[in-house]
This record gives sequence, structure tokens and C-alpha cells, in this order.
Amino acid sequence: MSGILNGMRVIEGSAFVAVPLAGLTLAQMGAEVIRFDRLEGGLDATRWPVAPSGRSHFWAGLNKGKKSVAIDMRAPEGRELITRLITAPGEDAGLFITNLAVKGWLDHETLSGIRPDLVSVTLTGDRHGRPQVDYTVNPALGIPDMTGPEGSDAPVAHALPAWDVAAGGHVVNALLAAERHRLRHGAGQGVTLALKDIAAATIGHLGMIGEAATTGRARAKCGNALYGAYGQDFLCADGKRVMVIGLTERQWQGLVKVTGTQEAMERLFRSTGQNLSDEGVRFRMRHDLTGILAPWFAARPRGMVAKALDAAGVTWAPFRNVVEALAEDPDLGPDNPMFSVLDQPGLGRFPVPGNPARYTGFARETPAIAPELGAHTESVLSEVGGLDATEIQGLFDRGIVGDTTRMRCRSAA
Amino acid sequence: MSGILNGMRVIEGSAFVAVPLAGLTLAQMGAEVIRFDRLEGGLDATRWPVAPSGRSHFWAGLNKGKKSVAIDMRAPEGRELITRLITAPGEDAGLFITNLAVKGWLDHETLSGIRPDLVSVTLTGDRHGRPQVDYTVNPALGIPDMTGPEGSDAPVAHALPAWDVAAGGHVVNALLAAERHRLRHGAGQGVTLALKDIAAATIGHLGMIGEAATTGRARAKCGNALYGAYGQDFLCADGKRVMVIGLTERQWQGLVKVTGTQEAMERLFRSTGQNLSDEGVRFRMRHDLTGILAPWFAARPRGMVAKALDAAGVTWAPFRNVVEALAEDPDLGPDNPMFSVLDQPGLGRFPVPGNPARYTGFARETPAIAPELGAHTESVLSEVGGLDATEIQGLFDRGIVGDTTRMRCRSAA
Repeated sequence: MSGILNGMRVIEGSAFVAVPLAGLTLAQMGAEVIRFDRLEGGLDATRWPVAPSGRSHFWAGLNKGKKSVAIDMRAPEGRELITRLITAPGEDAGLFITNLAVKGWLDHETLSGIRPDLVSVTLTGDRHGRPQVDYTVNPALGIPDMTGPEGSDAPVAHALPAWDVAAGGHVVNALLAAERHRLRHGAGQGVTLALKDIAAATIGHLGMIGEAATTGRARAKCGNALYGAYGQDFLCADGKRVMVIGLTERQWQGLVKVTGTQEAMERLFRSTGQNLSDEGVRFRMRHDLTGILAPWFAARPRGMVAKALDAAGVTWAPFRNVVEALAEDPDLGPDNPMFSVLDQPGLGRFPVPGNPARYTGFARETPAIAPELGAHTESVLSEVGGLDATEIQGLFDRGIVGDTTRMRCRSAA
Repeated sequence: MSGILNGMRVIEGSAFVAVPLAGLTLAQMGAEVIRFDRLEGGLDATRWPVAPSGRSHFWAGLNKGKKSVAIDMRAPEGRELITRLITAPGEDAGLFITNLAVKGWLDHETLSGIRPDLVSVTLTGDRHGRPQVDYTVNPALGIPDMTGPEGSDAPVAHALPAWDVAAGGHVVNALLAAERHRLRHGAGQGVTLALKDIAAATIGHLGMIGEAATTGRARAKCGNALYGAYGQDFLCADGKRVMVIGLTERQWQGLVKVTGTQEAMERLFRSTGQNLSDEGVRFRMRHDLTGILAPWFAARPRGMVAKALDAAGVTWAPFRNVVEALAEDPDLGPDNPMFSVLDQPGLGRFPVPGNPARYTGFARETPAIAPELGAHTESVLSEVGGLDATEIQGLFDRGIVGDTTRMRCRSAA
């Protein structure tokens, strides 16, 4: 592996999306990421989607290229081992990311007592340390209320765990910033982040809090329209759907031109006095604009629409499901060097994504598959923990540490 | 300012969400972030939501605490100035983030010819460098297809620009990783990222590609249910709605207990043989479970539901809009030290979020408001560009650079 973070070692104690995604991002940038789990696997070990084999696509997806260590965290000896891994020496080590929120033996105060220059990043649910998940933060902050068909009263929650994904980015940011500071000044750092704070800050950054606070009005749903300018979904002659963007003046003019609706738009301007070069006017008059544009789409199958929009340089996309996207979109398969078709045991062969970033100084790495639970227990205890073979064997014998591969081998023997 | 990135200087050439959000994140971590724009403002200068004053809540939200420089980018002299700012000396400078995708004078090859250790991060729409936006990437990859009411055929796009938010995190990650590498090895780096690649990688990490590729089936919509385990929205007696989580076994047991539905769940188990301790069973049988749980919610107003769920330690949240959240949720106002109530000229007073991360070694910074367009043109040209007062005055006189504050003063004079 030769990634931009080569040499860095991060210990991850995690479950579910945000922190595993942060660890994955670091691993795909070249860091050595060691995730520890309970002997039976973490709370996310069987998170859906799961394959008929019982293996989790979710777990495999979020733990690619990591080392896996399985340790009994209830046993004092297990806790000592985890502490030893987190505080192990090394200029590029002493880095810990977690959402386990364990007070006492696993908190920053205790761990930095052992390694004072430790950098730890802890993600909690809310700022009080209480559990919250993407599915609760999102409705509490009002996004489902503004999502869905115009005129409907029913809130619609997103299917993408967007706040978890955002939080994963913040965990990486905080870790890299704190490690940079340590490199310059030698000081460790305990960083705390809450999923709900990240979501609340983000809706503030997007202007949603200022809008709500100063107008006293909640943003109304606008279906699949682009908020605040023009962008709309259209049905084509074959029943297939496209999303078309008229956000900038250039995009808008391109859309009008390719659909041959200049005259109709001009008439609309003359009859209303509304200047369609104003993005806000385009949003407020979107139903009129859509009425003018829709026949062009309704008269052509999507293939023909696609060709015309591409030729005109219009920003657009088809609506499809993931199966269709895999079949039709070269960006989602082997044509895209970000993907490699790999065999993940228990799950099958499919395109696996690596790091989306390309660096001029580094070749693109092939992504690694996810480990079996505990596959690196022995090597990590030896190389990072500094334990000798007898000590390690004793830990396995006493059931303090595990390795599912070993266990399978044993039961097969 | 005394943040974790104190001393770092980043130049930002951007518009819309992802790169401005990345710059904001860096600024709120203590970096000096200088955003340059056209004299008339960027493509996002009037992006909705806008106030009656015409000022954009969106722009103000995403550019807080940055320095603003307004330069005529069509004029060769303006281009030279931007080049000079990006390549200005300084160990912690020579950092550039952009989504302008300008080939030639503003690309990494050209700029690194002037400052070889330049670190630049460029975000494009797709991997071919073509424009794509959150509103197109999302339908193309299938998220709207799996969002919305169960049984419906209509795709529902998210109201949150989730992929832009994710991309903002990746831009920061890439910049910090490349700057770390430069600090150790002296080498610059040109990093390229595509919004669509970030989205495609993320759905892969979440297991959605593996699921689609190996089953050939698209994930069905499941309304506001938590996918793969139990989590559901319920209407309370007063018509208010809550989201309740039974993701982990502990959460599920807590929910059953507080609603007094142990016996009904037991009967369901006996009649079906389905073990509700299996998260997948809870998801598949969610309609049965919801039928058993719903009467408890329907019999109580939300206030009473809230008290009972809190007392039982159940993970839950109310559904509300942003106006209600501001009124009701202490996490979204002055009680939360992440927020400060500030006056943003042209927009009003409202809670403004700072950095969600708390560092043991740094006090929490009060967030800064957004600058007027060009407010720092003069000081940046002097301090970063090294120009003298006569040179700067000449640039203003020739209309190569601008400052809306100055212009307003002039026209008022």
C-alpha cells in the first residue's frame, strides 16, 4: 500500500456508519486502521443488507482494508489489551476514533493518562452524550418535513444515512487536524463531536436556520424540484424519468434552447413581466416553466432526450434504481478506475469502490476487501501489542481474544 | 482566533455547496480562508434562501469567517493577482481548494509550475470533469428510487444536498492529508475528486452496490421505517409524529417494555415462530410490530409519549419543521454552546453555528459572520499579495478588483 497517509496507524472502536466510514476513508488513504470488536462481532455485524449466507454487505462495505481484532471487552485482560493497542508507541500512532462512548477505561482522560500525546476523536449521538441516530436527528431538525411531494403533509425521511456520512467526514477532519497539531507542537488532543450537532451546524450553514428564524415560516415541500432556481424531473415518452437542471443562467438558456421553447418563454415574460434570468423567478414560476417544457420530454423516449441534452451541454441525469445504474452507468463499474471487481467471501463478486480522490503523487490503489472478524488478532497483538507467541496463545486459550477463521478451522478439523 | 488549524492559509475559488462548505470547515477550525469571487459575486451570490433585502442566507451561511476578495477574472491582471495569492510564500500556505474547474491558468499543472509544493484540491461534477450537481448525481445512483412511501412508484429526491455535504468533507480530508504529506516530505500534490465518484463510492461502502449486483433486485421503498431492523414513525393522540428506534436488541426491548407490549410480542412469536431478537425479522415483520405498538402512541399526546420514552431510555425524536425545532429544541439555540446569536447584515439576528468539534486543547470559538463581497480585497492584496498602496489603488481605479463596501460608500458620497 502506498497512500498519502502511509505509516499512520489508527485504532477504531466502532459500530454502524459514521466512525466505520471514517476509518474506511483513512484506510483507503493508506493508513493502517485496526478495528476492534467484541468476540461475537459488533452491534453492526449483521446490519442489512445481508446476503443469503448471513454475511452483511453493510459491514463488508464499511470495513474494507482494515485489520480486525476480536477481544472480550468485558474481561479486564481484554480491556488492557485494547488500551495497549491504542496507546502503543509510534510517532504516527496513538490515534483513536470511536463511537462506543465508553466512560472510564476507554475515555480520553484515562487513555491520555497512559499516552499523553494521544489523539482521540469520539462521536456521540447528541452533545449530552446520549444516543441519537441518523433516523432520529433528521426528523428532529426538519429535513423530512421539507422533503416529498408538493402539497403533501407527510414527512419523508431520506433513505441515505446522510448525517452519518457527514459525520464520518468530520471525524476524519478532526483526527487529521489534531494529528497535524501534535506533529508541530507535540500535544495530544481529545476531540468530541455529536451527530446532532453536525446536522444542526450543517442546516445552519445551508441558511435553513436563518431562513426559519427570520421568516417564521417553514420551507414548503417542492417535490423533486431544485429549490430556489429551476430544476425539475420530467417523464419521457417511454415512461422513463429524467432530472434537468437550470440552476445557472447558462444551464437555463441551454435547456430552453434544446427544447425549442424560446418563444413560449418570451411570451410568458411578456404576459407576466417576470424576468426568467432571475433564479428566484424561475423557482417561483416553476410550474409554468415545467408546463412549457414537459411536452418536449413527453414526445421523446429517454434515449433521444439524453442525446439531445448531452449534445446541448445541459446538466441532467436519468432517474433509476441501483440495479439499473449498475447495468447502464459506466461510472459505476469497471470502466471507472475507482472500482475494482472483487470477490468478498460470503457475498460474491461485484464492483468495490476505492478512494474517490486521485493524487498526482500517488498511483490509484486497488481497494482491499473486508477482513474476517478477528483475522488480524494474532498479528496485531504481536506487532502492535508486542506480545510473544506464548502470551497470545494463552489469550486465545482463555477466550480473551478470537479469530473466526481459526475457530472455523478448528471446528472443521 | 485560536483554532486547531491556526496559521494555515487556504485560498478558495468556489461556488455553491461542497467547496464553500470545505472552506467554512477549515475557517471554523482556525485556518485563514480567502475566498475570491468575480466582481459581481460568484454564481451562488444570490442562491436561495434569500431575505427580503435580497441577501442570501445560503451564501452567508457557507462563507462565515472567510476573507472575501473580489477580482475580475477575465482580465489578465486579475488572473495574475489570483495566481499570486494562491502561490504566495509561507510554510502553511500554498493551499488551494476549488470547484471552478478552470483549465489553463488556474489548474494544478500551471500553478504548481510557480509554486512546486502547492497542494490543490479540485472538485468536479463527474470523473470526466463534466458538471454534475447533487440534484443529478442522486437520481442517477438510485437513492430517490428507494425513498418515499412504501408501495409508491414515484422517486423522491432528498431536500438536503447530502452528496455536496459529503463532498465538502472529502475536500477537507484530502487537503489535510496532502498538507501532512508535504510537511513530512516537502512534496506538493494535486488532488482531484468528483462529486459523482464520492456518491458512487459511498453507496458502495454502505453495501448498496453489493446488494444490487448480487441479488439483481432494487431495494424497495420502506417509507419512514428504519431499513433492516426496527424503527418507525408513529402518530400521537394530538396528531404529532415521533420516530422511534429499535435498532439494537436493547433499544427494541426498551421500546416493547415502555409500551407494555411484551405479551402481544410473545403471542406474535408463538404464532409465527419468528424470533424478534433477530433485527432482520423485526424489519420483515415491521407492519405487524407497528400494528401492535401504534395504539400506545395513538392514546397519548406527544408530550406524554416523550416523557415515557425518555424515562425508559428509548432512542426517539419528534418530527417537526425547522421553525418548530428552533422554538422547541435547546440543541438548536443559545443553550447549545455551538451556537451564537449574531447579527448578519441584511439578514437579521439568528443562531449561527460554529465548529461542532470540541477540542480538549482549545476553547470553543465564537463563529464569525460572513464578509461583504470584497471586504478584504485591500488587506489581502497588501498582506498576502505584497502589493503597495499605490498598486492597490491602481487596481481599484482600473476596476480589476472590487469591494462592495467601498462602492457603496462611494455612491453614497
